[in-house]
Amino acid sequence: MRRIRCIIQYLGTNYVGWQIQPNGHSIQEALEAALKRITNEDVRIHGSGRTDSGVHARAQVAHFDVEAKMPADKFAIAMNMLLPSDIRVLHSEETDIDFHSRFNAKRKHYQYNIQTGKHADVFLKDTCLHVHRPLDFDSLQRAASLCTGEHDFRGFMSANTSVDNTVRTIFRSQWSRKGNLLSYDVEGNGFLYNMVRILVGTMLDIGSGRLPIEAMQAALETPDRAFAGATAPAHGLTLMRVCYPDFDTEVILNEPG
Amino acid sequence: MRRIRCIIQYLGTNYVGWQIQPNGHSIQEALEAALKRITNEDVRIHGSGRTDSGVHARAQVAHFDVEAKMPADKFAIAMNMLLPSDIRVLHSEETDIDFHSRFNAKRKHYQYNIQTGKHADVFLKDTCLHVHRPLDFDSLQRAASLCTGEHDFRGFMSANTSVDNTVRTIFRSQWSRKGNLLSYDVEGNGFLYNMVRILVGTMLDIGSGRLPIEAMQAALETPDRAFAGATAPAHGLTLMRVCYPDFDTEVILNEPG
Repeated sequence: MRRIRCIIQYLGTNYVGWQIQPNGHSIQEALEAALKRITNEDVRIHGSGRTDSGVHARAQVAHFDVEAKMPADKFAIAMNMLLPSDIRVLHSEETDIDFHSRFNAKRKHYQYNIQTGKHADVFLKDTCLHVHRPLDFDSLQRAASLCTGEHDFRGFMSANTSVDNTVRTIFRSQWSRKGNLLSYDVEGNGFLYNMVRILVGTMLDIGSGRLPIEAMQAALETPDRAFAGATAPAHGLTLMRVCYPDFDTEVILNEPG
Repeated sequence: MRRIRCIIQYLGTNYVGWQIQPNGHSIQEALEAALKRITNEDVRIHGSGRTDSGVHARAQVAHFDVEAKMPADKFAIAMNMLLPSDIRVLHSEETDIDFHSRFNAKRKHYQYNIQTGKHADVFLKDTCLHVHRPLDFDSLQRAASLCTGEHDFRGFMSANTSVDNTVRTIFRSQWSRKGNLLSYDVEGNGFLYNMVRILVGTMLDIGSGRLPIEAMQAALETPDRAFAGATAPAHGLTLMRVCYPDFDTEVILNEPG
């Protein structure tokens, strides 16, 4: 058995999410179907984490085990010939058999994109949330800055999930603006289920004046979902980067050639 | 009767093009269906020009006549409530009854986008042509610069079209580069059927070394389709701007609010 790790890019619009579900097509299912055709083995692929229906990935990491003797870098090429055009394998390489895409991940970067203005831009409709109401950029930025550091994010987790440790460290939590496009970049050592979308939903409530800035601090100090704002829609969210001690998607994707 | 003119944005991916066709859904059909529901009149909408299947518009101009008394700016809002999310009416206003979106157009701007690199980016797949083979930027730029000015573009027109005057003036013909994205901007007083796509196809043949730079000059001097290169795929092309003596889409779209 050999272990292969790869970088996967996808537009989540037409999928029920990363994970195989009974009610529709998943990214995992598409990748496993391609691997089955290439290797004739029943391959299980493991992602660095699940992404919800509609969430995108610029660089998701996954690993799988195969017996096939194919050179590791050829998996990307062979899979892309079989995959639909909204899923691409950007890179594949052989790794130690004890590498695990989920358990070894040290840092992740998510981006949430918002388009402001009167009409939703047709070119951005699948990857940006359109917000018509005015947003105060300084309030968004102040709320975001409160999130950095180590916090118990239990209040920013979907109510129907169970996880033991809800403490996470956020290294970067920052808004930027370019014309009518607002982007929120958040990097951390891990994220709870729906955490980024609830952070964004809370900040949008603050930015639009529905909640005071103090609401963010209160939600960070209270492990109760009721203190945070709504869960922002999935389609504005993109997994941008995953880092491991010996593997950084950004480094690989910036290599020439 | 009143005449309304509007600015329309669309993602052409899921349409047979601007014009009504028997074999699928068109932009025109979607707009006319929305107008029928709003006014209960059989409204015919006239665009500044047809766009092919898969071609997009950031700012297409169209006009239509109605009896309905609805304030002119409300047409955009009412139509957007009925249109699919890949078509938006960005602006609507009343105009003189002798305004004609096609015959009065003085200048148009098209952009053709290309993504280079090993894999087609999933986020750009509908709006950029993916080109894997190396392209020489200086050759593209030199070929583009030969196109400015007044030329008989008969050699850059689809062979099965008939039009009397094939002389057009090109004001701007220029490539730009940003990371792995190459954009070709072309502005002119008018364009023949498939002209931009054949210009791009010819430049791609030159940029990849399949044709010498002299091929562009020869094609510009010879009114024969056989001298130019292939027709580049539709999905890289976007209509960016249409200008009239009293109406410029760029000015309207940059107005605040």
